[in-house]
Amino acid sequence: MEQGQRSGSRPAEPGPCLSSPCGADQAASVSLLSAAGAEPGSRTLAVAAVLPAGGCGRMGVPTPKQFCPVLERPLISYTLQAMERACWIKDIIVVVTGENMEAMENIIKKYKHKRISLVEAGVTRHRSIFNGLKALADNQPNSRLSKPEVVIIHDAVRPFFEEDILLKVVTAAKEHGAAGAVRPLVSTVISPSADGCLDHSLERARHRASEMPQAFLFDVIYEAYQQCSDYDLEFGTECLQLALKYCHIKAKLVEGSPDLWKVTYKRDLYAAESIIKERISQEICIVMDTKENKEHIGHLLEEVLKTELNHIHVRSQALYNAGSDIQHINLEQCCNFVCVNVKEPDFQETQKLMSMLEESNFSILYSIVVVSVHFLDFKLVSPSQKMESLMWIREFAKKMKKRKILLYGLLINYSQKFYHGC
Amino acid sequence: MEQGQRSGSRPAEPGPCLSSPCGADQAASVSLLSAAGAEPGSRTLAVAAVLPAGGCGRMGVPTPKQFCPVLERPLISYTLQAMERACWIKDIIVVVTGENMEAMENIIKKYKHKRISLVEAGVTRHRSIFNGLKALADNQPNSRLSKPEVVIIHDAVRPFFEEDILLKVVTAAKEHGAAGAVRPLVSTVISPSADGCLDHSLERARHRASEMPQAFLFDVIYEAYQQCSDYDLEFGTECLQLALKYCHIKAKLVEGSPDLWKVTYKRDLYAAESIIKERISQEICIVMDTKENKEHIGHLLEEVLKTELNHIHVRSQALYNAGSDIQHINLEQCCNFVCVNVKEPDFQETQKLMSMLEESNFSILYSIVVVSVHFLDFKLVSPSQKMESLMWIREFAKKMKKRKILLYGLLINYSQKFYHGC
Repeated sequence: MEQGQRSGSRPAEPGPCLSSPCGADQAASVSLLSAAGAEPGSRTLAVAAVLPAGGCGRMGVPTPKQFCPVLERPLISYTLQAMERACWIKDIIVVVTGENMEAMENIIKKYKHKRISLVEAGVTRHRSIFNGLKALADNQPNSRLSKPEVVIIHDAVRPFFEEDILLKVVTAAKEHGAAGAVRPLVSTVISPSADGCLDHSLERARHRASEMPQAFLFDVIYEAYQQCSDYDLEFGTECLQLALKYCHIKAKLVEGSPDLWKVTYKRDLYAAESIIKERISQEICIVMDTKENKEHIGHLLEEVLKTELNHIHVRSQALYNAGSDIQHINLEQCCNFVCVNVKEPDFQETQKLMSMLEESNFSILYSIVVVSVHFLDFKLVSPSQKMESLMWIREFAKKMKKRKILLYGLLINYSQKFYHGC
Repeated sequence: MEQGQRSGSRPAEPGPCLSSPCGADQAASVSLLSAAGAEPGSRTLAVAAVLPAGGCGRMGVPTPKQFCPVLERPLISYTLQAMERACWIKDIIVVVTGENMEAMENIIKKYKHKRISLVEAGVTRHRSIFNGLKALADNQPNSRLSKPEVVIIHDAVRPFFEEDILLKVVTAAKEHGAAGAVRPLVSTVISPSADGCLDHSLERARHRASEMPQAFLFDVIYEAYQQCSDYDLEFGTECLQLALKYCHIKAKLVEGSPDLWKVTYKRDLYAAESIIKERISQEICIVMDTKENKEHIGHLLEEVLKTELNHIHVRSQALYNAGSDIQHINLEQCCNFVCVNVKEPDFQETQKLMSMLEESNFSILYSIVVVSVHFLDFKLVSPSQKMESLMWIREFAKKMKKRKILLYGLLINYSQKFYHGC
């Protein structure tokens, strides 16, 4: 998969598989891994992921950074959402301290995360990762988990990554035994002498920052951890080095995008928030009751919006499913809706959407914009009916404005006869 | 100076010297440098700064990052403001490309930067710094600049630093010949082999990220650059290494705060914006005509606000100086004002402040909050006069709200007799 093919990372964007049930969907796994250039033998490659989330961070704030709210949603939830987009990952092990176990369970429940298993953290990052790997290893009593061929290790505090980097490290790990994302150094790295003076500077071009995700053949990294000294479990810095030291595996280095950065300081939370806000503003959700009338002119509007709004991510959502779909939209924090009213003339879709938006309290944070589209056949609808529609939308908008939901009405005059004649 | 003494970095906050004329103020220099533990001999230490700002950055945006607007003000202007707070720095050399020379001149004019000299950049960062140093060296024809004893080198894209780190590196440079700020590494640094695989990981605890500011005895760094090979001028990464290589000076490393980070990616601009916004919200400017009546009860209010609002930075500004001071307030982007009306009963101070705020278009960006305080002696003022004041402020507030200036009136009843009796 080429760099150029990246679609612009969107943590709030569901992957292609989220709209259909996936996880055990091997077909998806095959096609994705073939696209990444994996050999045909990888057809049934079993992949799991371990996310250490037991740290307390360096930000000097009481909440561990992975649980810090970004637009009122914990940072780790964005990371899980991005991970879940890769529907070929069978299990996602989140390693948290006993203290945060309940909070994590609540996050999983609230944001409807799937394929997650929780494992208790150790006292260091390496002990936590080892605990995660142990849960995946064979012969664990009472476990629904099974040993994967490849395991991804990723940080809970790196929410911005694309599926393609996961594919790249998994594919490289399958071939080389280990792989990790790297980035150019931002600052020169220096080695101090014992008296706090410069001993030497490292040549920047000849070094790389080791980032996440990393991936390993499960047997390689598990063996490395089993052989690992207590010193390494306490003070060792990274998994790639453990695979090298204990299994003589030289990890393949994969150049990553700037998105892979780790939320470390308070300023990183600010940056994360702004990035997510920007993405929200570039996302429109079209809501219509597609089930009822597949021939409806609304579909034409949908196609036009998708074609014309090049820089905006336009996605569609059906309203027919009692409301559960709309709940899902809210959780993904879409702020811009185009609601196509298929049923004439009572704006039923708009009313349904609005009451769902009202129930979710998301508009407390951000103004939600809803464009309610209504199609009127100018051959059939009288001017007084049009006026009535206009008045209704105006009154409704006035009421909704108080809830920070900005409703706009769009009445489209068309001739059904003409449309069907096209 | 202890880490604990830092007052919380505020780019929008004037240093203690900005309210009084400084620059040539040697007394300020002496007291500051003594506080940093410099020997008495440093009484007349001449310090200059060189800011290379000729780069085009890695953000993939057309504007070089140092000129990118943060709250409509170019990033470099914040850096210059932070640098100017150190009133003991005699000259600040900004090195820009010929192409950006005019833009830079406009920034200096618009934001009233002082002590700045512009020098044309070279094709690489090192050639730019060298050009800056040449302008400071002796015997430059037609130059008002003179050779400093110590020179600070800082990045135009690091706006968040405190005066104390400048003092620390300058003091250390005076003693050791060279000094630079360092930070712990965020990511593990690795050395790749020729085939793109891991050769080895560096032990994170034994390395540091080299940040800015750095400082040097002028003669040391100037000699290093004069002896520098073309290869180093093209590809060398940093000044500390040049001082080591060519002058055998082992720079003293000074642990810096997380604020020293460099704006490198688009996300860093987001972070910078949020940090500045946060600081703006934590700043109140008290405006009153102190010259007219130093005994006024308003001063008591000022003291109370300064004592009670622990987490807020409260500063005072006089209004008497025809308006130039108020212009200065706007440029520093204060959004919260308490305007104390000393002259009874015509709200003259509030009216003056409001018209100045109206003229500046700063309120287009942010709502400005002004609390207009009026003292009424309840022994002397009739209820109808009070009502009149209330009505006036209400009408005025209505008018200003359209300009996004939120005016609140605070009428304080007191007895002049009682107050003076205290």
